Amino acid sequence: MTDPYTSAADALAQEPQAASEAPAAHRARFRGGLVRPTSGLAPGFTQANLIVLPADWAYEMLLFAQRNPAPMPLLDVTDAGDPTTPWAPGADLRTDLPLYRLWRDGELVGEVADATSHWTGDAVAFLIGCSFGFESALQAAGVPVRNIDQGRNVAMYRTDVPLRSAGRMRGELVVSMRPVPPRLVARAAVVSAGVPRAHGEPVHVGDPAALGIADLDAPDYGDPTEMHPGDVPVFWPCGVTPQRALELSRPPWAITHAPGHMFVTDQPDGRRPA
Amino acid sequence: MTDPYTSAADALAQEPQAASEAPAAHRARFRGGLVRPTSGLAPGFTQANLIVLPADWAYEMLLFAQRNPAPMPLLDVTDAGDPTTPWAPGADLRTDLPLYRLWRDGELVGEVADATSHWTGDAVAFLIGCSFGFESALQAAGVPVRNIDQGRNVAMYRTDVPLRSAGRMRGELVVSMRPVPPRLVARAAVVSAGVPRAHGEPVHVGDPAALGIADLDAPDYGDPTEMHPGDVPVFWPCGVTPQRALELSRPPWAITHAPGHMFVTDQPDGRRPA
Repeated sequence: MTDPYTSAADALAQEPQAASEAPAAHRARFRGGLVRPTSGLAPGFTQANLIVLPADWAYEMLLFAQRNPAPMPLLDVTDAGDPTTPWAPGADLRTDLPLYRLWRDGELVGEVADATSHWTGDAVAFLIGCSFGFESALQAAGVPVRNIDQGRNVAMYRTDVPLRSAGRMRGELVVSMRPVPPRLVARAAVVSAGVPRAHGEPVHVGDPAALGIADLDAPDYGDPTEMHPGDVPVFWPCGVTPQRALELSRPPWAITHAPGHMFVTDQPDGRRPA
Repeated sequence: MTDPYTSAADALAQEPQAASEAPAAHRARFRGGLVRPTSGLAPGFTQANLIVLPADWAYEMLLFAQRNPAPMPLLDVTDAGDPTTPWAPGADLRTDLPLYRLWRDGELVGEVADATSHWTGDAVAFLIGCSFGFESALQAAGVPVRNIDQGRNVAMYRTDVPLRSAGRMRGELVVSMRPVPPRLVARAAVVSAGVPRAHGEPVHVGDPAALGIADLDAPDYGDPTEMHPGDVPVFWPCGVTPQRALELSRPPWAITHAPGHMFVTDQPDGRRPA
């Protein structure tokens, strides 16, 4: 597939926008073709993972999320064919994310900046909470977030931790990892536990092998994060989990966001639409 | 319909059990035919509302709960025909609640102490969090819970507050009301907000008319609660909400718990099954 990041770099060079602009301004730019990760954009507003499936699979996906709420905290589910959500009135889920992934029979077949031509009348979209929601809370509590400090996408890993199945939907937990100084591990756990719609508390502290992760330097998604001396690896449930589940469950088609390229909603962190 | 509470009183007189017994002991007694409200039983353990629907309605019910999580915080959804749940290994949802309600086309047609003969192969059960979970937290925080002090079922009311629909499932919010002294209203709000799987924070403080409630002395479910001078009525979303929704949505059949006669799980408050 072509590399849409090249055009993203061009767009950024032409249009140096303020990260703190309103969510709708960012979405309009993505609708216009800009491709870039959303980390750090519109701070204080909830960002969401996206997964779109045929209506025939919607019940199993909904049940799968309900049975595994830590990696898949559900924010919204659309009616079939309807690309709108009360989390961002006026937004169009088919165009307003910066980058989409297309799947066939559980295999990644491409990435596009506009999913309109793939969005069928029976498409049901699921919006799932994102760890960006607790990264700002960690920083506010004095916990360094090294991937942000290093200007990199967070490191994400497949694990061998099974999820509770729902019909044809099954999977294994995907985690994100952030290195935390030992004296701040407890604080990081407590602060993130207070943001349950962004995955909540860590699933594990300390030993990658306990999760079946062989090499922290080789993440399955995102970029490796440089650890400082003494740092403890802390693992959180990750919203990429349903993308791994697609590979195992093999629905005929699916659309997701590309990792790190999230849906920026109009809802302040910690709030739901009225 | 006959009054099963008579036999409940008989059973209680014959068998004065300790309220603090383990959940499984209470469930075994209900399985054996005891009918009584579960308020105050097995303190510290999560109790749940039950609604059972044909599989053909399960997606819409699941989506309805997802779209209205305050009145319907979902704890579990069973596979079709399966009366078990990880919230209480060994329990049988068809027999282990003290009293069930049977519905046909949205109308209440009877109450039974054993739902086995009505539990079809396509029955999907939904377990929904219950306000009993925050009543103990309120008491621990020094907020009097007058309905408990008065030995009565909590007062519950229909409102005119519409819920977000999901296909054929639609409804209006049902609330429970607890009178709170003015100096403790804020504490009651904060404490209950910390128990989201038990409905979370109040939906309204002070004015019954704002919710379309005409007369606090005439609750639609449960018993009236005597207010002390100066008490403020505080309203929480209530797990009877799906029973009201049955009346409006009219599925061909449904089974629910009888109000106040909940499923006593093995999970301590605030925990989920591992």
